[in-house]
Amino acid sequence: MRDIQRRQFIADGASAALLCALAGGHAFPFKTASDVKRADAAARKVKRPKAVPKDPVDTMSFPTPQPQPGGVAREYWIQARPARWDPVPTGRDEWMNMHIPRRRKFMALAYQQYTSGFAEPIGGPSIPGPILEAEVGDTLVVHFRNDDHHFGQAHTMHPHGVRYTPDYDGSYLSSFTRAGGFIAPGEEFTYTWECLPGSAGVWPYHDHGPNGTISVARGMFGALIIRDKGAKKPDVEQVLVLHALTPQVTEADAVFQCFNGRAFAGNTPTVRSRVGQDVAFHAYGGDGMFHTFHVHGHRWLNDAGAHVDNPSFGPHEVVTARWTEDNVGRWLYHCHVFSHQDAGMAGWYLVEP
Amino acid sequence: MRDIQRRQFIADGASAALLCALAGGHAFPFKTASDVKRADAAARKVKRPKAVPKDPVDTMSFPTPQPQPGGVAREYWIQARPARWDPVPTGRDEWMNMHIPRRRKFMALAYQQYTSGFAEPIGGPSIPGPILEAEVGDTLVVHFRNDDHHFGQAHTMHPHGVRYTPDYDGSYLSSFTRAGGFIAPGEEFTYTWECLPGSAGVWPYHDHGPNGTISVARGMFGALIIRDKGAKKPDVEQVLVLHALTPQVTEADAVFQCFNGRAFAGNTPTVRSRVGQDVAFHAYGGDGMFHTFHVHGHRWLNDAGAHVDNPSFGPHEVVTARWTEDNVGRWLYHCHVFSHQDAGMAGWYLVEP
Amino acid sequence: MRDIQRRQFIADGASAALLCALAGGHAFPFKTASDVKRADAAARKVKRPKAVPKDPVDTMSFPTPQPQPGGVAREYWIQARPARWDPVPTGRDEWMNMHIPRRRKFMALAYQQYTSGFAEPIGGPSIPGPILEAEVGDTLVVHFRNDDHHFGQAHTMHPHGVRYTPDYDGSYLSSFTRAGGFIAPGEEFTYTWECLPGSAGVWPYHDHGPNGTISVARGMFGALIIRDKGAKKPDVEQVLVLHALTPQVTEADAVFQCFNGRAFAGNTPTVRSRVGQDVAFHAYGGDGMFHTFHVHGHRWLNDAGAHVDNPSFGPHEVVTARWTEDNVGRWLYHCHVFSHQDAGMAGWYLVEP
Repeated sequence: MRDIQRRQFIADGASAALLCALAGGHAFPFKTASDVKRADAAARKVKRPKAVPKDPVDTMSFPTPQPQPGGVAREYWIQARPARWDPVPTGRDEWMNMHIPRRRKFMALAYQQYTSGFAEPIGGPSIPGPILEAEVGDTLVVHFRNDDHHFGQAHTMHPHGVRYTPDYDGSYLSSFTRAGGFIAPGEEFTYTWECLPGSAGVWPYHDHGPNGTISVARGMFGALIIRDKGAKKPDVEQVLVLHALTPQVTEADAVFQCFNGRAFAGNTPTVRSRVGQDVAFHAYGGDGMFHTFHVHGHRWLNDAGAHVDNPSFGPHEVVTARWTEDNVGRWLYHCHVFSHQDAGMAGWYLVEP
Repeated sequence: MRDIQRRQFIADGASAALLCALAGGHAFPFKTASDVKRADAAARKVKRPKAVPKDPVDTMSFPTPQPQPGGVAREYWIQARPARWDPVPTGRDEWMNMHIPRRRKFMALAYQQYTSGFAEPIGGPSIPGPILEAEVGDTLVVHFRNDDHHFGQAHTMHPHGVRYTPDYDGSYLSSFTRAGGFIAPGEEFTYTWECLPGSAGVWPYHDHGPNGTISVARGMFGALIIRDKGAKKPDVEQVLVLHALTPQVTEADAVFQCFNGRAFAGNTPTVRSRVGQDVAFHAYGGDGMFHTFHVHGHRWLNDAGAHVDNPSFGPHEVVTARWTEDNVGRWLYHCHVFSHQDAGMAGWYLVEP
Repeated sequence: MRDIQRRQFIADGASAALLCALAGGHAFPFKTASDVKRADAAARKVKRPKAVPKDPVDTMSFPTPQPQPGGVAREYWIQARPARWDPVPTGRDEWMNMHIPRRRKFMALAYQQYTSGFAEPIGGPSIPGPILEAEVGDTLVVHFRNDDHHFGQAHTMHPHGVRYTPDYDGSYLSSFTRAGGFIAPGEEFTYTWECLPGSAGVWPYHDHGPNGTISVARGMFGALIIRDKGAKKPDVEQVLVLHALTPQVTEADAVFQCFNGRAFAGNTPTVRSRVGQDVAFHAYGGDGMFHTFHVHGHRWLNDAGAHVDNPSFGPHEVVTARWTEDNVGRWLYHCHVFSHQDAGMAGWYLVEP
């Protein structure tokens, strides 16, 4: 028996699947919903860490960055909150015209946008969270409030692509944690991020707090779009995050392979355009898997100047597909990993004349 | 016991492995040969779906594309058929000089080329299927016949890279299925695909019918090669599809990691060239895994202008390795994922003076 | 019972995890430490294979390459040896400030550098092995000695990127094995590799002997850095190999996800720089998995001229991140595959003013 257990452990170790999560000072297996509950309980107990400097940089202070001449501060009010979430609101897959019979609703964690001063919500909590837009030379000033009254854990916003001082990194680092790396439930913090010339593009942001892996698995991610100054916005622009909602966090009996928190065509975003429009899809991996992004009936130039119709990318790596629309029809877009595609990672792209 | 089963399900859900397949209106697990048999039985019963338009584009009709001025229609006759297939015809691995003792033959599905009007077969069914070649400005006119008398399922041809109207997409879409998305056993259909300037390159085609995932796992894939008008063909040109033939479809006791339907050196293609020749390998992933393509003794420029000798790529994403040959010898080519390489995904490249 | 076993086999076959290893003439499962012991025993018995030519190239002989005019022969003395290895020397993770309680030490295999003529070791055995540097036009002349008295197996050095004749390929090919493809314990062999213009860059080298997959899993890999003639060396240059030390080789009860043979911040390399320095990280995958390389607070140009901060790459595929440093702080670098990051694949990058 002991030997069987040992072999099982060893086989697990070899697995490419999700293995463990870090919850403030402890590593937890990440194979079952029970594992996640134990990590949640540990994460709930994490207090703001006491700073224990080890290196000269740990005690340095940094000024808050200001916009470049001609740039502005783009302010956003964003709240993290639990949200009862249904990955398949229609209960059906329109691609295969099939019923999705499983238990689906679960407690997600999501970012939600508010008007100035957190006066009023703008829409509901969303997966991915609100798109934060700016131009090169601007700062993104993001007022973040943690309203996680359900899991009761500290959360953050960690951005990719932009420049930030350690205080605005948004990463929990135990004894090295800076101001923005631990925002407890009920607290607010304002992040300031610089949009450098090299920041032009589309980038993820996500929770990087003491239970970040599990929070991201629950939906705590979004996108930044930074444009060159005066750059034209595409006529149709769609961020698509490819990620799994797994049984560990949903307690469903199978995985939902999602675009933007929804699985199966008719639930994932139905994107619409017309011939002649400048259309851009920005796809990135929001989980720990590798994906591809394929759009039927279309091809586009990648950064290297080659035509592609199905590029691959890793976790939190963004690819952009942009073209001038010329092909009318009902098209599938999907991840070409068959096991993802068949578990919901597909959607409609409808082009009218 | 119930708890154990549940935990098992949950662990499965977390797995990166093949998880489920869609067979016309149902999702099936894809873990065992029995699962596949149940999906096959369901797929056999799928009737041509009745159109249920939902959006204006669903009722539009589209003219069949014609070649551009100066272009031609390149006609092919391609049949889909079951084929008794041996992934290791020699029964040996020449790299490690070892016997491959397992049961190997299984019922594959493959594309097979015919002469005009399906008069006579050109060679046998092959994995990958026939290479379809054209130039920019041409149309590819592919007469497709479904001769799947064994599994009795509808099949299609879905191309990447080229342009097509919804009728020639070759995708089963249940109530939104167009003409080319459901070719029942015994039926014929002619696809017409446009070779745009952006179509220049090498692209996959594959079944995208009601049981597409399983059909592709059985071998229903091939390649298009579209060249710029008048572009020189390489002296040596080899398409290599990296894919697993898994126990679910082979009923063997282990996976065969293949190049072109064959596993282990001496079975996978032995490619030959001479010094001074213009050599091109076109590699793509034909399953749901990620791979790399490494050739010993060689390096080449990627699309970004960097030298590489082992690029990675995802499912149905193509990389081309092209160089002027300058290095005599017996060289290994292989996927650098060790578990793929060691289960057969390797072959010989022989260069003579 | 038999059916259960069969189903288990089939499920295994579908797994993306490590599946089998080749040990000179036999394939072994690679799921447990016992499997590895059996492969080790078989590999220990492999004798230098007798040449059985099959093709004209198999009997050709090749001159040893010389440096180009203006180039030089860069000589290295490298020994392969067993090394008792601790993936977490501090016993702690500094990121999460947590204790790593597991049994950790195991018998690794590593490359170790010596002074001329193997007179004296230069540092200890290391994972990755010594960096071998040269310029375009040079030859790398690597005197290799196999001191594997523990596992008693033949080993080699197989380089990427550079040019070599079949004798210097360093690959075991059973009956086609060339001089450098089987260096038995106690033996020495001198490899000569040419640094072509297309070799400029950073490339892996690794064991490709009769038990190569398992030897690489134990640490037998390193890097070549080839620069254009006279090219400036970065002020800070760090090779980072992303790889798992798995229970099959460590007999620990879980996997260690490593940078350079060490897991968890404070054990993985702590890289230091100052503002204004030219900083380069060269990251590659040393196992069979796919990874990304993310550095907080930074972004850089990829080969295609796009700004990235988290590129993905496959096994033995190298990405370089290079920038002029401008951002003071304690930064995390890590793989963005969460299950890797959380099992140790993270480290510190400290920038001072």
